[in-house]
Amino acid sequence: MTKINVEKCAGLLKEKDNILILTHAHPDGDTLGCGFALCRALLQLGKKARVICGDEIPAKYAYLYRDITMPDFEAEYIVAVDVATENLLGSLADTYGGKIDLCIDHHGSNTAYAEYLLLNADAAAAAETVFKVIKAMRVKIDKGIADCLYTGLTTDTGCFRYASTTSNTYRAAAELIDLGADNGIINRVMFETKTKTYAALERLAIEGMRFYENERVCVITVTQEMYRVTGSGEEETEAIAPLTRQTEGVEIGLTIREKADGKCKCSIRTYESVDASALAACFGGGGHKQAAACKFDCGVAEAKKLLLAKCRDFLS
Amino acid sequence: MTKINVEKCAGLLKEKDNILILTHAHPDGDTLGCGFALCRALLQLGKKARVICGDEIPAKYAYLYRDITMPDFEAEYIVAVDVATENLLGSLADTYGGKIDLCIDHHGSNTAYAEYLLLNADAAAAAETVFKVIKAMRVKIDKGIADCLYTGLTTDTGCFRYASTTSNTYRAAAELIDLGADNGIINRVMFETKTKTYAALERLAIEGMRFYENERVCVITVTQEMYRVTGSGEEETEAIAPLTRQTEGVEIGLTIREKADGKCKCSIRTYESVDASALAACFGGGGHKQAAACKFDCGVAEAKKLLLAKCRDFLS
Repeated sequence: MTKINVEKCAGLLKEKDNILILTHAHPDGDTLGCGFALCRALLQLGKKARVICGDEIPAKYAYLYRDITMPDFEAEYIVAVDVATENLLGSLADTYGGKIDLCIDHHGSNTAYAEYLLLNADAAAAAETVFKVIKAMRVKIDKGIADCLYTGLTTDTGCFRYASTTSNTYRAAAELIDLGADNGIINRVMFETKTKTYAALERLAIEGMRFYENERVCVITVTQEMYRVTGSGEEETEAIAPLTRQTEGVEIGLTIREKADGKCKCSIRTYESVDASALAACFGGGGHKQAAACKFDCGVAEAKKLLLAKCRDFLS
Repeated sequence: MTKINVEKCAGLLKEKDNILILTHAHPDGDTLGCGFALCRALLQLGKKARVICGDEIPAKYAYLYRDITMPDFEAEYIVAVDVATENLLGSLADTYGGKIDLCIDHHGSNTAYAEYLLLNADAAAAAETVFKVIKAMRVKIDKGIADCLYTGLTTDTGCFRYASTTSNTYRAAAELIDLGADNGIINRVMFETKTKTYAALERLAIEGMRFYENERVCVITVTQEMYRVTGSGEEETEAIAPLTRQTEGVEIGLTIREKADGKCKCSIRTYESVDASALAACFGGGGHKQAAACKFDCGVAEAKKLLLAKCRDFLS
């Protein structure tokens, strides 16, 4: 693995052709925004390029690619964007593991699996760095590219809300808006609009929200029965976890989700007072200081008991 | 009334002393952020200045002013910030109506009640313009001023989410962060944290959310009983109205709030397909195209019937 800078990265991409761009599984706005922005830039340079993902791309992201045609070709150069480890490629990992030529990323935890790595761990979104690469490639940034990159910035920062957002993130957003990015519509689609099925699931989740340890712990449980009743599914539960941390006084938010086999997973959200990854580690999980996850071989009720006991330890 | 530019405004402020700054009633982050930023700048220039508000300032805004001492003095120059009409001064209107020397605002609907008016209706927040004035006054912008101005920007744009947010808004935010504004903490306090009483009220509101007209209309009803049960109050209901518009397919969101006297008010939220102010006007109310309000002399159930009948007309 060789660490490279923006100019070297742009140079590599300019000299290659038939470029396959890989995004991570359970795709989000950053991996997809980076992928399609880079693809658009390469197409504009007259190269063949396409974006693939191990999972289906949710319909709300269709605007990232619906006006471009991505040709078929035999891949000669393989690029991963916003993918911290090869495992995160999901179903693509078997085919492309060990074969990735270039990775552009912003995760400090990147495992350096690619031949060349352009990593900026200070960037709030990988799109900040892809934006620089596209500028260095001297591609004209049109509305399509600007919409893709803005999508990456806004989704990875919770609409510029998270503490990870820097003045550089805001400056990049300003530039992209001047280049045509439709910030009003993109933010409405990403942050204001809930599918009917998700809205129904969220209502049930909030009705079932419970507080423990003097309201310092908040628990939401999502069961298979709730998916059945609402028509929602596990792929829509990402927005549930942050709800557990929003009530004043809560220090630990737990979202326990029942899987189809009756076992369960837990998403943990905390503020500074509690290390979420340390709590998750008690159950073999991991993650970041304020957002982590772990799995259980038992059902929801038993997992909740185990988690609440550990929470008590962490809070005392 | 004379319309002035940023330089003229800065010049006026520099030549005055004993400056009283008025904010609007039901104060929000923009009026308060502008008021305390301007006050800090004037104090730094060795002038006497203070900020007043017709209503109590919610505790979450304490960081805007807790490290400064505002002296007492007899007002010689009266400035209103982010106040579109004198009525919006609330309980201050009687004392200061007709006596306002200078107004800095961003509402296109400003009634030009002040002797001098600095108006930028393209700004997403009044804080964008106050920022320019403070720069033109050649004051050193410290962390305190930066926090105040950033608060104005982020609160009036729903954390840079609304379509009103421009590249200038993002650029101002970037500058303020470089000047020390603590964006992570400010956004957490303003957008991530719900008081226990509000969180309880919101849960009840969401449980009672109902859909009509093929789920194109969403209604939330907030009753006096709900305030009693949750310990919440009308001052905490502002964040409820946007919830009605978040479900995919909803074109009209209605939040009907029962008042202590049994009568009620309705907040209307729409997307482009429906003119909220026209709907509100059917009941003697008014507002903007996508956010409006009206009052009823009847109770909640009757108002809901009247509103739903009108919604049917508007949707057909």
